[in-house]
Amino acid sequence: MDRNERNERFEHGMKVLERVDGEGGQRVVASLGDVSPELGHQVVAWAFGDMYDRPQLPPRDRQLVTLGILAALGGCEIELDVHINAALNVGLTPTEISEALLHTAVYAGMPRAINAPLVAKRVFEERGLLPLNIAGDDLTSA
Amino acid sequence: MDRNERNERFEHGMKVLERVDGEGGQRVVASLGDVSPELGHQVVAWAFGDMYDRPQLPPRDRQLVTLGILAALGGCEIELDVHINAALNVGLTPTEISEALLHTAVYAGMPRAINAPLVAKRVFEERGLLPLNIAGDDLTSA
Amino acid sequence: MDRNERNERFEHGMKVLERVDGEGGQRVVASLGDVSPELGHQVVAWAFGDMYDRPQLPPRDRQLVTLGILAALGGCEIELDVHINAALNVGLTPTEISEALLHTAVYAGMPRAINAPLVAKRVFEERGLLPLNIAGDDLTSA
Amino acid sequence: MDRNERNERFEHGMKVLERVDGEGGQRVVASLGDVSPELGHQVVAWAFGDMYDRPQLPPRDRQLVTLGILAALGGCEIELDVHINAALNVGLTPTEISEALLHTAVYAGMPRAINAPLVAKRVFEERGLLPLNIAGDDLTSA
Amino acid sequence: MDRNERNERFEHGMKVLERVDGEGGQRVVASLGDVSPELGHQVVAWAFGDMYDRPQLPPRDRQLVTLGILAALGGCEIELDVHINAALNVGLTPTEISEALLHTAVYAGMPRAINAPLVAKRVFEERGLLPLNIAGDDLTSA
Amino acid sequence: MDRNERNERFEHGMKVLERVDGEGGQRVVASLGDVSPELGHQVVAWAFGDMYDRPQLPPRDRQLVTLGILAALGGCEIELDVHINAALNVGLTPTEISEALLHTAVYAGMPRAINAPLVAKRVFEERGLLPLNIAGDDLTSA
Repeated sequence: MDRNERNERFEHGMKVLERVDGEGGQRVVASLGDVSPELGHQVVAWAFGDMYDRPQLPPRDRQLVTLGILAALGGCEIELDVHINAALNVGLTPTEISEALLHTAVYAGMPRAINAPLVAKRVFEERGLLPLNIAGDDLTSA
Repeated sequence: MDRNERNERFEHGMKVLERVDGEGGQRVVASLGDVSPELGHQVVAWAFGDMYDRPQLPPRDRQLVTLGILAALGGCEIELDVHINAALNVGLTPTEISEALLHTAVYAGMPRAINAPLVAKRVFEERGLLPLNIAGDDLTSA
Repeated sequence: MDRNERNERFEHGMKVLERVDGEGGQRVVASLGDVSPELGHQVVAWAFGDMYDRPQLPPRDRQLVTLGILAALGGCEIELDVHINAALNVGLTPTEISEALLHTAVYAGMPRAINAPLVAKRVFEERGLLPLNIAGDDLTSA
Repeated sequence: MDRNERNERFEHGMKVLERVDGEGGQRVVASLGDVSPELGHQVVAWAFGDMYDRPQLPPRDRQLVTLGILAALGGCEIELDVHINAALNVGLTPTEISEALLHTAVYAGMPRAINAPLVAKRVFEERGLLPLNIAGDDLTSA
Repeated sequence: MDRNERNERFEHGMKVLERVDGEGGQRVVASLGDVSPELGHQVVAWAFGDMYDRPQLPPRDRQLVTLGILAALGGCEIELDVHINAALNVGLTPTEISEALLHTAVYAGMPRAINAPLVAKRVFEERGLLPLNIAGDDLTSA
Repeated sequence: MDRNERNERFEHGMKVLERVDGEGGQRVVASLGDVSPELGHQVVAWAFGDMYDRPQLPPRDRQLVTLGILAALGGCEIELDVHINAALNVGLTPTEISEALLHTAVYAGMPRAINAPLVAKRVFEERGLLPLNIAGDDLTSA
């Protein structure tokens, strides 16, 4: 692959990354700059430029799949932070995000299902979205 | 919990299970009958009756999350079979399902992303849906 | 499920949770209150009220299984903290807990087997149980 | 380590392996003979001779931990087969084994909790132990 | 990305794939053809064309890393088959491959470390490389 | 195993541990001293004394496998810190280490491939090795 094509792939990926993730994704890429610039490049050029940009699944649907994957894998706090923000950016509501993470309990168990909303809590807090009001759900059941 | 409530929870769950998974889910539950009837009961009464039935995420969205989780976890061939069928039942197209599984490659790597569509291939074959025609995608790139 | 039954399931679960986990479990449930109250509800009503309360395995045996699962999964520090406390509450000795976590090394490898006792160390310290005196075990082998 | 000590460690481990696992463990070790004899040696000499033989946890307790680990990890069908047999050998009842595997659902999710009892079903069948009669549990809830 | 560039990336990747994996990799890609041609394309164009082709790690070293990853993840039998063949193709000896898989036991535990050499056994058998003669290793320790 | 043999196995392992890991490994073992001295003993006597010391794979190759396993598993930050140091100790360059971790992206996905170099970044920083200059790789692609 020549230098020119490499640059174009990166620039195209950055546009998709900005559209989906906003600043969070760029911060992750930047944090890799001095230790693994190629990983940063591949996250941008491949993951976003190639994979995220495909029209076969609209951004909102794609984020639902992403939330399921990241919550299930565990150890993805950095990515969950970025992609819970991304989920809000592409139109998922906090209630839908919370519900998607709740659903993880069925297939990946309680620890994965507890860790993910604790990340969501921080993101929602930063964006002034707490507390959620989910009709019919409450802890005291009063 | 009294016997009556237990029965009602099971019956309610069976209705949701039938609506979402069709026969596949019932076969899994039946296969547990003589070794762990309680697990079968909990899959029906809790996973479907309680969790799947919540209106905060419509069935199509819930299946997208489920596909992401199951593909990412690995070792979920039984459940992928049931839930790729379920995904078709609730209105996801084969192309959308294939795309959701493809997306797994970004976060869970190629082996998980390869195993899941091989299950989808069997399901799509049984339902006469192969080959998929995904605009712009082909192997030979000719 | 009507509101009344939902409340009763929650209240029953809280009794089991208090009996097994003490305050630690309640803190986890409370931390979910504003972002995923339903997850808190399900941890209490289903995981404790339904699953933990079953008499087919006494609490001490159940905690041994739980320790094995949590150590093997990795990324379960929150739950290990709660359930190492729970293990002490239901009669496992620090030596037995340490041994159960050591056993994880055989099947889940050294990293999982190292992370779990580092959580146990904090719990044992808080409860004034360190150092353990395990006959025949020592590092210097002197 | 000299040749003599190596032999003694292996022979000691074989005695523990036979006591705990019976023939199943030996079959696994034998299957590794021509491709990784050292792995077979380490399973016997280290995992059984060193780790399983420790008195800090009696065999029945150790199998409970083992069942939790193996079910949670997934992809351990070979080992689950051996250790469900081992669990029966050291005094766990089929109902207790089934319950330990059911408990996995809470922390590792339904797919792991479904795969493990399907292995148990084969083992129990071979040993003429099916169907289990677990008081209060049934699928039809009739 | 235009059609031309897409084709070139695929063709370049196929050359790397053939060099490293031989026929095994092509069979995996072909098996995806009717259900997820894009995944096949990305395996070839990205994983091989971009990632495998980088000169910062020679092919033999890269396969050592790959063997460690695949054995540790579990559920990667398809990929282990391909990459144990690839490891032989790029100059690793059966003894080195067996040793790399044995090393997995330390960090990922016995089940992962047992599954991987059982795949190696099939590959070595097909290529007439069994039994291995590893100096000093034997099961009987006689 | 008698007391004398146990001591010899530990002392032999400590020599291998010091050679490979330097101080980092000893700190991990020391941190286990009061909660699980036997785990510390087994890390030293078995993992290093038995497994790491085998001549079938030279130290540099063994570290490549180790890096792949640890990055793929996730949740191994403690061990990655120790073994990225070890990798430098046995002759791998920072560029080779970075490349091995980058390769993880293909099989274990981006989150695992991002977490590992963030640990490497800390290690390289402590040892004055940043920024890496990898020919042809840069983020801005300018």
